[in-house]
Parts: sequence; structure tokens; C-alpha cells
Amino acid sequence: MSPIDPFAATADFEHALRSDIPLARAMQLRVHDYDGDRLGLTAPLAPNINDKGCAFGGSLVSLLTLAGWGLIVLKLRALGRDCDVYVQDSQVRYLAPVWTDFVAHAHLAEGETWESFIAMLDTRGRARLQVACRVTLEAGDDACTLQARFVAIART
Amino acid sequence: MSPIDPFAATADFEHALRSDIPLARAMQLRVHDYDGDRLGLTAPLAPNINDKGCAFGGSLVSLLTLAGWGLIVLKLRALGRDCDVYVQDSQVRYLAPVWTDFVAHAHLAEGETWESFIAMLDTRGRARLQVACRVTLEAGDDACTLQARFVAIART
Repeated sequence: MSPIDPFAATADFEHALRSDIPLARAMQLRVHDYDGDRLGLTAPLAPNINDKGCAFGGSLVSLLTLAGWGLIVLKLRALGRDCDVYVQDSQVRYLAPVWTDFVAHAHLAEGETWESFIAMLDTRGRARLQVACRVTLEAGDDACTLQARFVAIART
Repeated sequence: MSPIDPFAATADFEHALRSDIPLARAMQLRVHDYDGDRLGLTAPLAPNINDKGCAFGGSLVSLLTLAGWGLIVLKLRALGRDCDVYVQDSQVRYLAPVWTDFVAHAHLAEGETWESFIAMLDTRGRARLQVACRVTLEAGDDACTLQARFVAIART
């Protein structure tokens, strides 16, 4: 397994998202940061407003869900596993309106590890993983949180 | 309180959604049906695909949430109540991929009534309501379900 350049991997990921998902393009989604354990996606406010002029709930959930999905997709690629990744369910809490450009960060939920996820995937050909995602206000408080369960299925 | 023409009300609602929310316009959202107790919103597949060519989860959740929100907004307008309506939280289940144009239907969750919601709103100036929303496959099985809690706050 050859080492993967994280910058090139996230640039490819961003390009693919915007090419393959028209709504990601309409949202003007970009990768904000990635360190292997945390992925941040960002979007400007203007194309993502609602009728009140703050961030549309559908844009928040889309960015949060894509951050969780991307966290798993990028890790599987870095580890050389060829999988499809699907979201299965999620719980969303809208806590405060967002009046600025925003970033959705995703990391593994408490109690989850990459090691157990990959071990299950290699044994069974499929594995589930819970991811915690949030958009925070500039002061650091949560504006919107999403906890989602994904499944990865090895391509045969 | 003058009677409201349901057709004109939904045409106005659709026009406002597409004018005020850029993502609703990008999704090519339209009102599908409305009878006062159930609202259906529809979107074509093409602008709402994901990387696999089926409906993007963010589009499904956006349409489902807007159907629930619209169900409450249209009822409050018909009853002459001037309110802001916000989504507070939701649970989403992705059950099957959607390979066609799709419709999201919303109705009150079990145990909820318009009468108790309006009574609370008139007494307290704010009231919460649970709404059940679903996108079904052509055979009738659920493809994606969303249960969401909204709050309406009377404008002063």
C-alpha cells in the first residue's frame, strides 16, 4: 500500500463531489481541513440561505452528512479498501441560526475506532460506523449537530 | 377570516420557496399535492443525483424537511396566524435508494392535532408540533422517512 498525499486526496475528493453531485456544486462546497481523523467541509452563506436569510436547514444537513461520509471514504481510500459507503440513519438538532459562511466538521463518534471498523470490514465484507458532525458558531457553540450511522460494503 | 383558495396558497408557497431558497430552486422543487392535512413536494431526479446516480441524501432530507415545514406554514396561513416556523430536530432513516423523480409527503405525527397546536399557540404565543414525512418507492415501500419537531412562534 503506497502512502497517499492527504492534500491530493482531499483535492480529488472535492473535485469528485462537485462533479458528481449537482447539489454540492450548487452549495459551492469545498474541503476546509483534513487530518485523517477529522474532516471539515465548508460552504458560503449566499447560495445556502433560507427565507429568513440565515443558513437553510437542508444545506446544513447536506454538508454535515457529506462531512461524515467523506471522513469514511477518505480513510478507506488511504487504507486501500475499495468500498461503497452509504448513510443509514441520522439524528439532527438545529440549535441556533447560522448567519455566516459555515464549516461542518466530522469525527468518529465516542466508542468507535478505525481499527475495529476495518477489522469488521475485512472479516465480513461490510461494517457500520457512527460519526459525529457539527457546525459551530464563531463563538464556538454548536449551531447544528448530526449523529449518523454509515455502512461500508466492500466491492467484489 | 376570509377563506383561502388552496390552489393559490400552494402556488404562492412554491413561488416563495423557489425565490427565497436558492437550494430549493437548484433542486427544481414543486408542490405535488395539498389537501390541508397532507402536503406533497416533488423534485426531478436529474438535479438531485449523488455519485451513484440515485437521489442524493441531502436532497431527500431537504425535500422531506420542507414538506413538514410547509405543512405547518400553509395551515397557519389558512387559519390567519402570523408566525415564524423553525425545525428543531429530526430523525432520518434511509431505507432504499431512489432511482426516479420523487415526492416527499408530510402529515401530522400520531397523537398530534391541529386543534391542540393552535390552542397552545394562541395561549402561549408558541407551540411545538411533530410531523411525519416520507418518500416512497413506486411499489409503495418507504425509501426515506423523517420525523421532525417544529416550533411556531407568533410574530408580535
